[in-house]
Amino acid sequence: MIVVGPNQYGKAEVRLLRVDRAATAHAPTAHTLHDLNVTVTLSGAFNDVHLTGDNSAVLTTDAQKNTVFAFAAEHGVGQIEDFAARLAEHFVSSQQAVSRARVSIEEYGWTAVGGTGHSFARTGREIRTAAVTHDGTRSWTVSGLRDLVLLNSAGSEFRGFARDRYTTLAETTDRILATAVNARWRHAHPAPDWGKAYETARDTLIDAFARTHSYSLQQTLYAMGRAVLEEQPSVAEIRLSLPNKHHFDVDMAPFGVDSKGEVFYAQDRPYGLIEGTVQRDDVSPVADEVW
Amino acid sequence: MIVVGPNQYGKAEVRLLRVDRAATAHAPTAHTLHDLNVTVTLSGAFNDVHLTGDNSAVLTTDAQKNTVFAFAAEHGVGQIEDFAARLAEHFVSSQQAVSRARVSIEEYGWTAVGGTGHSFARTGREIRTAAVTHDGTRSWTVSGLRDLVLLNSAGSEFRGFARDRYTTLAETTDRILATAVNARWRHAHPAPDWGKAYETARDTLIDAFARTHSYSLQQTLYAMGRAVLEEQPSVAEIRLSLPNKHHFDVDMAPFGVDSKGEVFYAQDRPYGLIEGTVQRDDVSPVADEVW
Amino acid sequence: MIVVGPNQYGKAEVRLLRVDRAATAHAPTAHTLHDLNVTVTLSGAFNDVHLTGDNSAVLTTDAQKNTVFAFAAEHGVGQIEDFAARLAEHFVSSQQAVSRARVSIEEYGWTAVGGTGHSFARTGREIRTAAVTHDGTRSWTVSGLRDLVLLNSAGSEFRGFARDRYTTLAETTDRILATAVNARWRHAHPAPDWGKAYETARDTLIDAFARTHSYSLQQTLYAMGRAVLEEQPSVAEIRLSLPNKHHFDVDMAPFGVDSKGEVFYAQDRPYGLIEGTVQRDDVSPVADEVW
Amino acid sequence: MIVVGPNQYGKAEVRLLRVDRAATAHAPTAHTLHDLNVTVTLSGAFNDVHLTGDNSAVLTTDAQKNTVFAFAAEHGVGQIEDFAARLAEHFVSSQQAVSRARVSIEEYGWTAVGGTGHSFARTGREIRTAAVTHDGTRSWTVSGLRDLVLLNSAGSEFRGFARDRYTTLAETTDRILATAVNARWRHAHPAPDWGKAYETARDTLIDAFARTHSYSLQQTLYAMGRAVLEEQPSVAEIRLSLPNKHHFDVDMAPFGVDSKGEVFYAQDRPYGLIEGTVQRDDVSPVADEVW
Repeated sequence: MIVVGPNQYGKAEVRLLRVDRAATAHAPTAHTLHDLNVTVTLSGAFNDVHLTGDNSAVLTTDAQKNTVFAFAAEHGVGQIEDFAARLAEHFVSSQQAVSRARVSIEEYGWTAVGGTGHSFARTGREIRTAAVTHDGTRSWTVSGLRDLVLLNSAGSEFRGFARDRYTTLAETTDRILATAVNARWRHAHPAPDWGKAYETARDTLIDAFARTHSYSLQQTLYAMGRAVLEEQPSVAEIRLSLPNKHHFDVDMAPFGVDSKGEVFYAQDRPYGLIEGTVQRDDVSPVADEVW
Repeated sequence: MIVVGPNQYGKAEVRLLRVDRAATAHAPTAHTLHDLNVTVTLSGAFNDVHLTGDNSAVLTTDAQKNTVFAFAAEHGVGQIEDFAARLAEHFVSSQQAVSRARVSIEEYGWTAVGGTGHSFARTGREIRTAAVTHDGTRSWTVSGLRDLVLLNSAGSEFRGFARDRYTTLAETTDRILATAVNARWRHAHPAPDWGKAYETARDTLIDAFARTHSYSLQQTLYAMGRAVLEEQPSVAEIRLSLPNKHHFDVDMAPFGVDSKGEVFYAQDRPYGLIEGTVQRDDVSPVADEVW
Repeated sequence: MIVVGPNQYGKAEVRLLRVDRAATAHAPTAHTLHDLNVTVTLSGAFNDVHLTGDNSAVLTTDAQKNTVFAFAAEHGVGQIEDFAARLAEHFVSSQQAVSRARVSIEEYGWTAVGGTGHSFARTGREIRTAAVTHDGTRSWTVSGLRDLVLLNSAGSEFRGFARDRYTTLAETTDRILATAVNARWRHAHPAPDWGKAYETARDTLIDAFARTHSYSLQQTLYAMGRAVLEEQPSVAEIRLSLPNKHHFDVDMAPFGVDSKGEVFYAQDRPYGLIEGTVQRDDVSPVADEVW
Repeated sequence: MIVVGPNQYGKAEVRLLRVDRAATAHAPTAHTLHDLNVTVTLSGAFNDVHLTGDNSAVLTTDAQKNTVFAFAAEHGVGQIEDFAARLAEHFVSSQQAVSRARVSIEEYGWTAVGGTGHSFARTGREIRTAAVTHDGTRSWTVSGLRDLVLLNSAGSEFRGFARDRYTTLAETTDRILATAVNARWRHAHPAPDWGKAYETARDTLIDAFARTHSYSLQQTLYAMGRAVLEEQPSVAEIRLSLPNKHHFDVDMAPFGVDSKGEVFYAQDRPYGLIEGTVQRDDVSPVADEVW
């Protein structure tokens, strides 16, 4: 017999800008921006809509979008982990059919410019992310970042690897190591200050990347993940996905130029892709939907 | 204690073109193209490389890339399910540390033009995909497609949905229904002819989309998945991810134009996203890594 | 003294879908789609808005967008050259400050599927383009296409080229020649049937690419352009921009595989870029803004 | 008669990383990165290659690429205006057929991290650009930037605009003004310090955007351009292309939420596009190919 399997639905990529205009004693006209991309995903008792098109249990994705905007107006945004939690809890508690809601958010950074209090430039730094999953009883909070592009121009080797018939790569004791960090870390307990916890995790990742003398990108990945767990006791596990953004030393001998390892060709594709989890050994496994 | 969790690595997006030049009695100079994007992912006994940077078990991603090219030369490409299987089995059987290999492939279509036998135009149709996972004993084969953009300009309603405080959407008995189909179907048994099975599944998805009078995109999703399972007994389950590419009827009353439901604004973001599985009820669950 | 130089403004990328539902005797319920991306650009007496922010001459880009939708409703779309002309003439004739209007359009192709009369799949073929510039007296019409990806797997050489210190490329009598055609052709006179003229030009470009034994991509470019001018007397000149999508023969000797010129690596960047115009020698030069 | 019209060719998007490792007294091991995307375009006496495929005058685009890498090794990169000039002059002086060379460069910013002297993070700030055109006698230098995303959350009005039948936009005395600045400025004379001149121009653009009380984006554009010309006497003219990145105030009255102008929907398409030149009135016009 053919049946409905696991399913979910929601509104993806609600692009929302919240301007906080609250004057303070120190900055009577200084604005603050929250520039978000919000995705809502709901699951629960939705067999009927698949089987018969009965929409009576379906909260429209349009209403989900409205809710995102309304909550930003009514409650403000604040830290994206809090904003995601507020929304996820709302959908589960207010819709009988919804047994699990996941709200994932990307936040784009802005920095004040021009001294006007209302002028900003996009930082272009990495994108901060958060995802909160709520099932009516429990919540899972995953913070993260992506597009944090890092490069070491020294301190990276790659040698002693396995060799088979198809292995032609030369060993090296000095290569460029570059990656675009995609990291997500799951909190066993809420951080006391989500914003500070984020900045600390980001700085920890950068420092570990920079300070690890690398024999492989896997080793660097582990060092980065381990550093975050050591620094933040409330983080239970971290997942890292690190593309190896290859920079190949250009051989200029054919045209009589001594290249001395200073000029590299940055290749788009193909690229190595290293993915791994670093976790505490006493962590209970969680469902993959949480990530 | 902090430990290494699940991990994998490999070479992503090897862009390969294979030209088959074999002359036949019917077409002495007709070429055939296989235009692929191949990604290899390996997992197994790789704790040491994470913990100490010991690369002795690591088959380089460069060698993986070479292997993809070499196999295309030695064995040809043929159907991408077969090519992926050959590669996945090779990595597991030839590398002691590798306990599971996954090879996923995208194939881009070309059509002969100009009557020369060696001239082609990219079709621009949907992208065909395949992923084979092998663990030394068993193999899982998932075929699929993405970017199949479909639209019904009639036969789609959306009404009778749940209403809450934030619901403002008007009910409709006539809307545009458009999506970009992303579908993957898992084979319980190998198809007798992968190429024919693919074309049949594609046509079945299109026909089901077209012929289903839609009350919701969820219902259309289920109809599409069910049709594939009914038509191909060897398919155990199918996963569909369908963005609702919104086309909004432009209200022209403010400038005195009668719009009659003929002119629509195609919105990029946000969009609804409907995801679901259709499966046989006697199917054994498989690991998520297989998909 | 610092002054305002050349300037223009308008609404870019109005994504419009027009559904023609007109029943005919032969197809009582068959729909037709016009799926467009429309950009309006206006120029004229707009110094004041730059110098003082006086908007009294500024037709808002929002109104331009509305006009595009309204014209699609009132007049239909038809051929994009006609739709662009109608809009360009409107903006110049109805706005005193506007001395020149340019309307450029991309059209995405759809093909009927499923036999319902209202179901469609995106073809994914090349994108058809048109741009009409009107200055109150004269109009210039440029038709075109982009993303027409072509490949010859035989019939392409590259040798006898200039050599300098930095030249290391090997000569070849058999290479892959691939490109993504971007072509625009200017009509001295309106084509009797824009749709047919487009299809003919497209087929001519493909045929010329396929049938030219190529010694260089420049030569192929010229052959393609010349063929269009020979075939369509009303075309005054054609501009072609052809990226050389490099496919490199993979050298498998290092791992003992005989590659026989059948397996190629498709490189993303860098790429050659060949751009040229083919024109009638009696053509009067036109302003660059027209293109 | 059908003839060859204007044409050019070259290698596009050479992705080059130059690591300067020169130790100084202050930083014995501090590296500096130059991360570039270089495009070479040559034109001249190339009729024959179009007409007959005679490549004897054609410097291969592969050799052009090699030259870019070699010059980076032999001379270093330094300021991109200088690097582009060195390359452009080389191609014209060393190739008889080449009468004009244009070298355009994008530079991606990196900032030191981790205190190692060899570790970096991409800044993600705007992309710096330069293009030098050389014809054997004269050179034209254009500096610029793109993707500088700016936003004012106050100090922007839009009212008093022209109204026609299709104008429905409400006037406003308080809107979000946001754009992604694309600016190119042409130097009448070389700047004494290209790097400092760039940073100054960038800061001037930002300051002018922030400090201009805006009645229209055109007015802001002019203020930005004028500020650069006032600040840098050596700049002859500046071209600005400013998309109006619309942020629409979300109307929450339908669900009973008072929105107070704090929550906005960021729309992708369509968008206004404002383009203009600000120049000195005694500037001699230059060919469009220079830009």
